[in-house]
Amino acid sequence: MSHTSSAVARFTGVVPPVATPLNLDGTVDHASLERLVDHLIESGVHGLFALGSTGETAYFTDDQRVAIARTIVAAAGGRVPVIAGAIELTSTRIAELGRKLSATGVDAIVTTAPLYTLNSATEVGAHFRAIAAGIDVPLWAYDVPVRVHTKLGLDLLMQLAADGTIHGVKDSSGDDVGFRRLIAANNAAGHPLQLLTGHEVVVDAMALAGADGVVPGLANVEAAGYVRLWDAVTRGDWTAARAEQERINSIFEIVFQPRGLSGDATGVGAFKAAMKARGLITTATMASTVETLDDDALERINEILSALDLMPVAS
Amino acid sequence: MSHTSSAVARFTGVVPPVATPLNLDGTVDHASLERLVDHLIESGVHGLFALGSTGETAYFTDDQRVAIARTIVAAAGGRVPVIAGAIELTSTRIAELGRKLSATGVDAIVTTAPLYTLNSATEVGAHFRAIAAGIDVPLWAYDVPVRVHTKLGLDLLMQLAADGTIHGVKDSSGDDVGFRRLIAANNAAGHPLQLLTGHEVVVDAMALAGADGVVPGLANVEAAGYVRLWDAVTRGDWTAARAEQERINSIFEIVFQPRGLSGDATGVGAFKAAMKARGLITTATMASTVETLDDDALERINEILSALDLMPVAS
Amino acid sequence: MSHTSSAVARFTGVVPPVATPLNLDGTVDHASLERLVDHLIESGVHGLFALGSTGETAYFTDDQRVAIARTIVAAAGGRVPVIAGAIELTSTRIAELGRKLSATGVDAIVTTAPLYTLNSATEVGAHFRAIAAGIDVPLWAYDVPVRVHTKLGLDLLMQLAADGTIHGVKDSSGDDVGFRRLIAANNAAGHPLQLLTGHEVVVDAMALAGADGVVPGLANVEAAGYVRLWDAVTRGDWTAARAEQERINSIFEIVFQPRGLSGDATGVGAFKAAMKARGLITTATMASTVETLDDDALERINEILSALDLMPVAS
Amino acid sequence: MSHTSSAVARFTGVVPPVATPLNLDGTVDHASLERLVDHLIESGVHGLFALGSTGETAYFTDDQRVAIARTIVAAAGGRVPVIAGAIELTSTRIAELGRKLSATGVDAIVTTAPLYTLNSATEVGAHFRAIAAGIDVPLWAYDVPVRVHTKLGLDLLMQLAADGTIHGVKDSSGDDVGFRRLIAANNAAGHPLQLLTGHEVVVDAMALAGADGVVPGLANVEAAGYVRLWDAVTRGDWTAARAEQERINSIFEIVFQPRGLSGDATGVGAFKAAMKARGLITTATMASTVETLDDDALERINEILSALDLMPVAS
Repeated sequence: MSHTSSAVARFTGVVPPVATPLNLDGTVDHASLERLVDHLIESGVHGLFALGSTGETAYFTDDQRVAIARTIVAAAGGRVPVIAGAIELTSTRIAELGRKLSATGVDAIVTTAPLYTLNSATEVGAHFRAIAAGIDVPLWAYDVPVRVHTKLGLDLLMQLAADGTIHGVKDSSGDDVGFRRLIAANNAAGHPLQLLTGHEVVVDAMALAGADGVVPGLANVEAAGYVRLWDAVTRGDWTAARAEQERINSIFEIVFQPRGLSGDATGVGAFKAAMKARGLITTATMASTVETLDDDALERINEILSALDLMPVAS
Repeated sequence: MSHTSSAVARFTGVVPPVATPLNLDGTVDHASLERLVDHLIESGVHGLFALGSTGETAYFTDDQRVAIARTIVAAAGGRVPVIAGAIELTSTRIAELGRKLSATGVDAIVTTAPLYTLNSATEVGAHFRAIAAGIDVPLWAYDVPVRVHTKLGLDLLMQLAADGTIHGVKDSSGDDVGFRRLIAANNAAGHPLQLLTGHEVVVDAMALAGADGVVPGLANVEAAGYVRLWDAVTRGDWTAARAEQERINSIFEIVFQPRGLSGDATGVGAFKAAMKARGLITTATMASTVETLDDDALERINEILSALDLMPVAS
Repeated sequence: MSHTSSAVARFTGVVPPVATPLNLDGTVDHASLERLVDHLIESGVHGLFALGSTGETAYFTDDQRVAIARTIVAAAGGRVPVIAGAIELTSTRIAELGRKLSATGVDAIVTTAPLYTLNSATEVGAHFRAIAAGIDVPLWAYDVPVRVHTKLGLDLLMQLAADGTIHGVKDSSGDDVGFRRLIAANNAAGHPLQLLTGHEVVVDAMALAGADGVVPGLANVEAAGYVRLWDAVTRGDWTAARAEQERINSIFEIVFQPRGLSGDATGVGAFKAAMKARGLITTATMASTVETLDDDALERINEILSALDLMPVAS
Repeated sequence: MSHTSSAVARFTGVVPPVATPLNLDGTVDHASLERLVDHLIESGVHGLFALGSTGETAYFTDDQRVAIARTIVAAAGGRVPVIAGAIELTSTRIAELGRKLSATGVDAIVTTAPLYTLNSATEVGAHFRAIAAGIDVPLWAYDVPVRVHTKLGLDLLMQLAADGTIHGVKDSSGDDVGFRRLIAANNAAGHPLQLLTGHEVVVDAMALAGADGVVPGLANVEAAGYVRLWDAVTRGDWTAARAEQERINSIFEIVFQPRGLSGDATGVGAFKAAMKARGLITTATMASTVETLDDDALERINEILSALDLMPVAS
């Protein structure tokens, strides 16, 4: 096992949550996964987020998760750092999973507040501290109340930053006021946290507000756009950043094409359909028991891609 | 491995969710657990629910869960059937855990809708079907939206009953209208489901409405009362059932004594404190990272128990 | 203005929330309303709840509300007490409306926590106290979080009872545990509050639990059944109460026949459709801007009524 | 009655929701209100939002509301357009109130989805259409799910724009993804809607995303800052906009100083306390029944203002 470096890896800029390609029988398509990782890095992304919600991690066994992390780390080959989601119920279970994932060579672990349980903020703090103490790579916090039904508060996050428990936050909270306050508090404290937004359609705005980077599911479909967007952000060209964001947002409309399906079927399903259409993966198979897009949705997705000259990627 | 019988076990009447006693160092106190199981059965309960929310199952590793189930099954010794919670994120993971638990000899597995994911009712149905196909004991559904944030709908449950996927429902939904409609639909379909309420303070009322039994966390503290209550229900003596329920509800006030703590710290914490006071377990240690009750709360709990002549149980 | 008596009126037993019949042009059909009130009282109900959610009160102007209350009071003619909903945003506005309604001769006013505002429990208490001080008839609290998005807590309600602010509670909270605790606390305090459940399908169970009465929207369709049910409750015949409740619940299935419509269109719409089918009102017109049931839904509703021999009522 | 012009007034740039100063006895302090309006306009704001949430409109009677609107319109004297909130339950009531407010000379009316009722998107659309048909000034939609518990969807808003029902949206939804999509859809449709954000701490970011203006409650405390911020936005100087936003956000921390109070007591209470400290209003009295800030909170608020050289405003 070797992590990218002995120092704490930085996750800033564009850090896509890597989708998990599947074979038609539902097993992980490691060949496509390698190809996808290589494509993302060649497109210029700055890091990789393995086993996130977009990676359908909740649907995989621990053995599958370890295999996925191993493939991503190997394909990355140290070119960019890799952070892996350890999505499980509670701290003891998460630390156990975190150690398995750490052994694959990922540079950091990211996890959420507890699932299923009914905990106080004090207990959620103890949860993150127990996990950090139980793994041998840096820990990040993932704030995604739409899935976890707990919001990580500003005071809690800054305490966990102050005592070295967490090194960054992926914010998918949908609370732009809270995120802006977190940015300000983090700056006032000397920037102990790297703050990434998970809201891929407002990267320009959140970067202006002070985000350190973005975890865009849509980068699985169009990584180059996000890299251009972040380059514009880096050089302070907000007009160019906005223009690229608006182009990207036209692509994002693919996730609104499926009708009557679940959030997971719609979001990841649209990404996988577009990735297949662009030749980035071999099948758009979803993890069991997620529904598959119908032909109408696929047609509308393809129309959007065609209208934007997005298919297929040159291999 | 031997299940109680080759037929589908019945879970009706009083089926307590067995608390998990812990040693001061947080390891499982199997000796107290054996003693607790024996006490419950001697008190007349009709079945045991292992690894439920009251059993703090979400905080334990799979190895701990298997050990807990094994102790409960052994201590029960076939005197009453045992159903075990398989609380995990999604179907593949749940079936994997369910097989481990089934190997301990439990008679049935109970689980919830998926956690963390964003699924449709169709997908939740597929979830239960995949689990039932992946385990070798009967499956029950556990409807607990306060933890899972999904309500299992009437139509879905009756479909899963009709195709033999599930054999019963533990309802902790807090939706008395929905539960009453489920009872009516189940009766109209020939009673394929055994319907248990998780609301321990309205057992008389839910029994009048048609519930087949109850999963009362408070039975860890006072099992005999629930057995008396159910006996009254069985013989149609609703006045006696109500009187016993009201006495039991005075005990239930223990869970409202802790102030400013989480739901898990408060509910299970009060049960464990009272169990320790009654000599049923050795320590009131909570699973990591749940907070412990303060002395004020313990004092108020003891006052309630004393006022009701509830301490200690003769050993 | 004359109230039924100088003492505080009692609202126990069956207290239907009177539907508001409309003409085809959307104006209030006072003739049908008079007829409906007379039918309800002739059927044996014990009180009337004017201007509740089932009465579509939120859709009417203050002038319309006053006219509706006046008609109901006149038609009741002192035979049963009348309580009127004063549904408005905040205390000053509610008291102003309450005085207008009180002037029609209603015996009590019932209202909710504030709407639209973001208040603490302390402020909600002050809200009820300000209203009680601003009207000249007794005040009741209406707990309906599905509409108001605030739950009235046990401690708050018992404080408002202790200081004489409120005389009763209509509970539509869907929280059977909370309602059972409220019953126990009210009994321990000497029964200062009359406690009515709004859950028309579990009247037998809630009566066993200790409810003083029920506010059943469905009584607009089938008042006699609720009166029989309450008679059984009163004489302690729980088996008969349950049998009548189950018969009534078969009728309640009418509210699940409309598909894809709103809660108001579905619930009140089904009641009005059935009332028209039974000859109790002239049209099933809904308040603006609520959608109307389609023919499919009407057909299924009529089938349910026919199967239960419920149409038409002899005039 | 005279509106600012015969054309549809534009509400863009900085449009503060005017606070409602009160005398110690709770009556409206019209002298302070005049002074406040004059101060805001002198500070350069581009429009005024009367009777919004910050204006505590929900707590006032219709007579009080009309008087408040009249004072604001008179004090504005046509220098900037005035839009007035008509916050009421449903369409018939809102239109009735809207006509009263329109008669005071306001240039537009803004309202929300229905309160208290349970409506579908179709019914919410009919609601806005009925209101627009019932008033004689342009209508705006106010999307504030934290108070109304309904989110106005993209499709609905664009339909209401297409048929001329609404002329703009004040977005306080906290859904930055939805707001970004609304901006894109509005641009694609030829910009029929003026889109204002209510999130005063991310104005730079939302302006970059395409917002046409902002309704900042905090502008009651520091209007000049928002005007400078918007000037920077207008000339495309995003770095200056961000710097001003960050300065403003330091002031916004005043709303987090009160502890244990309600949302209304905290937010409006902090604004009023700071306005009084700056000499903009005479008392910080809150509308009945909102709690008052304690001395600790006032001290911390004054410290924040002092540290930022914000007290008092030269009269």
